[in-house]
Amino acid sequence: MHDAQSSDPIKMGWMQGFPPAESQRVMVRDASAYRFPQIRWSFSHYQELYPTRPIDRGSSPTQQLSLNLRDDLDAICFKPIGDNEPMRWDQSLEKNFTDGIVVLHRGVRIYERYFGALSERQHHLCASVTKSFVGTLAAWLIHDGRLDPKEPVIRWIPELSASGFAQATLEQVVHMTTAIRYDETYANPEADIWKHLKAGGVFPRLANDQGPNCFTDYLQTVVQSGVHGQQFAYRTPNTDVLGWVLKRVSNQSLSEMIAERIWQPMGAERDAAIQIDSIGFEFAGGGLLAVLRDLARFGEMMRLDGQLGGRQIIPKAVIRAIRKGGEQAKFANAGYTTLPGWSYGFMWWHAHDEHEVFTARGVHGQTIYIDPKAEMVIARFASHPIAANAHIDPHSLPAYRALAEHLLRES
Amino acid sequence: MHDAQSSDPIKMGWMQGFPPAESQRVMVRDASAYRFPQIRWSFSHYQELYPTRPIDRGSSPTQQLSLNLRDDLDAICFKPIGDNEPMRWDQSLEKNFTDGIVVLHRGVRIYERYFGALSERQHHLCASVTKSFVGTLAAWLIHDGRLDPKEPVIRWIPELSASGFAQATLEQVVHMTTAIRYDETYANPEADIWKHLKAGGVFPRLANDQGPNCFTDYLQTVVQSGVHGQQFAYRTPNTDVLGWVLKRVSNQSLSEMIAERIWQPMGAERDAAIQIDSIGFEFAGGGLLAVLRDLARFGEMMRLDGQLGGRQIIPKAVIRAIRKGGEQAKFANAGYTTLPGWSYGFMWWHAHDEHEVFTARGVHGQTIYIDPKAEMVIARFASHPIAANAHIDPHSLPAYRALAEHLLRES
Repeated sequence: MHDAQSSDPIKMGWMQGFPPAESQRVMVRDASAYRFPQIRWSFSHYQELYPTRPIDRGSSPTQQLSLNLRDDLDAICFKPIGDNEPMRWDQSLEKNFTDGIVVLHRGVRIYERYFGALSERQHHLCASVTKSFVGTLAAWLIHDGRLDPKEPVIRWIPELSASGFAQATLEQVVHMTTAIRYDETYANPEADIWKHLKAGGVFPRLANDQGPNCFTDYLQTVVQSGVHGQQFAYRTPNTDVLGWVLKRVSNQSLSEMIAERIWQPMGAERDAAIQIDSIGFEFAGGGLLAVLRDLARFGEMMRLDGQLGGRQIIPKAVIRAIRKGGEQAKFANAGYTTLPGWSYGFMWWHAHDEHEVFTARGVHGQTIYIDPKAEMVIARFASHPIAANAHIDPHSLPAYRALAEHLLRES
Repeated sequence: MHDAQSSDPIKMGWMQGFPPAESQRVMVRDASAYRFPQIRWSFSHYQELYPTRPIDRGSSPTQQLSLNLRDDLDAICFKPIGDNEPMRWDQSLEKNFTDGIVVLHRGVRIYERYFGALSERQHHLCASVTKSFVGTLAAWLIHDGRLDPKEPVIRWIPELSASGFAQATLEQVVHMTTAIRYDETYANPEADIWKHLKAGGVFPRLANDQGPNCFTDYLQTVVQSGVHGQQFAYRTPNTDVLGWVLKRVSNQSLSEMIAERIWQPMGAERDAAIQIDSIGFEFAGGGLLAVLRDLARFGEMMRLDGQLGGRQIIPKAVIRAIRKGGEQAKFANAGYTTLPGWSYGFMWWHAHDEHEVFTARGVHGQTIYIDPKAEMVIARFASHPIAANAHIDPHSLPAYRALAEHLLRES
């Protein structure tokens, strides 16, 4: 079962037929929508499972990404992390349960493939790639002087005064150096992430569940554990708090902010959407839905210091601030064996390598990978059986690097 | 409370703030999304409340509706049904809790207004206007010889063999002359419509609800009451059965059929969407979401015998079959006092008057009104406190007729 071929969602017939047979249903109410192999279907059909708020692309023309597909990339070989057997690029896509991948070189689509249940017209769940959008908006409002990173977040969200965020500064939240008690091990059914997702309606609640029933109620239950500011610790509630701050300061929803500041000016080709809870609160930590090419556009704009199609979409100083990254020393002990020397800053992952790579990452393999030196951007959607990217990086990061070097060699 | 001004959803602050105050929340889980005055907000934000399936407009250019707004229409006077006080056109909009209205004359937008929580970019619930799309698709498949109206519906849907539809022909279903036990009185909390909507997830289920939990399970519980084919009786399950037949025969979802056959060829300006239940079954009886102008485009295409922008979208013979209407004699005793001499055929309402008016109608005031003689099409969204159009027609139908006569006089 655990390979891309045998879990192919079309072959498995998920949600085919009118109505689909009971054994082929993918639903929220029985939690099957969040199980493998059903996620191979559900991640490409999220609007059909959950309430979502549209992110309007507006009525301007699409910023076209020109196409020059190359057939030499499939044969590029790389050495997976922890494995001496070389692997080909095209094999890596299957190994990673890829649903879609676009590679841009100098803004031109040189590679584009769709698998599983995804097409170029369909939204896919971005999962925690969402966080990098939220972090970018935060960097922008800080740059504009509308947010002071040294202030405590309860300046804007007094509702958190009795929570573990009471002593946290915006800076600690935005770089995830808060010390909160929160187990984000997806493989553990008792982990806090599941309570969090149940509050937000992502995961079904039992009828007798007395826990919080929306994101904002959940965030108020999070407690502190340790000293804020000392270590990076990847905890999704930070992003939900950050999204809350952004909304309150701007008096706009994230969907409005993303639409007005990013999606419309960058000429996105389709509307996007964001998952919301039962009271309309957006899932800043992981709810963005978008088509793959629009993620690639966003990545290309980040690569070009905020420009796309000759227009400055995001101020260059904002991108520069993001690309400084976080503190490597605070990241070093966080246990990311596939990311040596990396950091997390403004909710982006920074390699601090000679290619100046920085990435957005989401569970089950969602990625925007930006390699400025190689002038390359990769956007990938996936539905890997394992949530943690540590299991996906070994056949992704070296593949991306091999592609970058291939492109650099011919320059 | 019961006027458009005092129930204005923006003034009432529904779902404003991050998060909205408890008293200002509009939710599915407490059924507030289906209550007045909350529907003044929810009907314009349906995707934020329910799972929906996108109806893809494709990437072709929008079929523009040219604009020539006229300021003489607001002062047009008409006599409401059952009232000798004349009323002005602009007053009628408020009286009817209009959320949006477009009037096309010979395809040109001569009037366009948005109220309440609606804008030109937002979807609004079409409610039973959806049925006219489903009826149009049925007429089309009959015309193509893929459906025989004389066959029993269980030929395609054997799951209904033990239901009240067991003896019904497709023709009876498509013109709603089946005799089934089904109370569709929205004002009665015990009416069958609520069980139906609970099965489909439109209305929240109590935790101990043992009833059907999807549309297709519900339809199998509907029983016969009387003799099929004798009288018109407006019953939403007919459309859900018809949608089921269309899907099984075409092996396409309604969203695919509407996208490929209507939305894309007619140059819709935005994607549409359709509400689905927990197993992905589309609510054929009332789940379409669309922007107002796209409803107007569809109406204009119906007026032009299936053409729009010089292209034949739907075969002329299909439109001709629809415009024959249903049997007036079977309609006469159904109790529609505001619709004397009308009929219901292919899920459209037919006036059989000298203007050859035919309309699509949905609860709370959703309308496409087509007046071929006056070369006029009106698309209206509304959120009237009362579901039944009998309460809305008195200030709508004579207003539309007055507008038509105004346009005819100057021709």
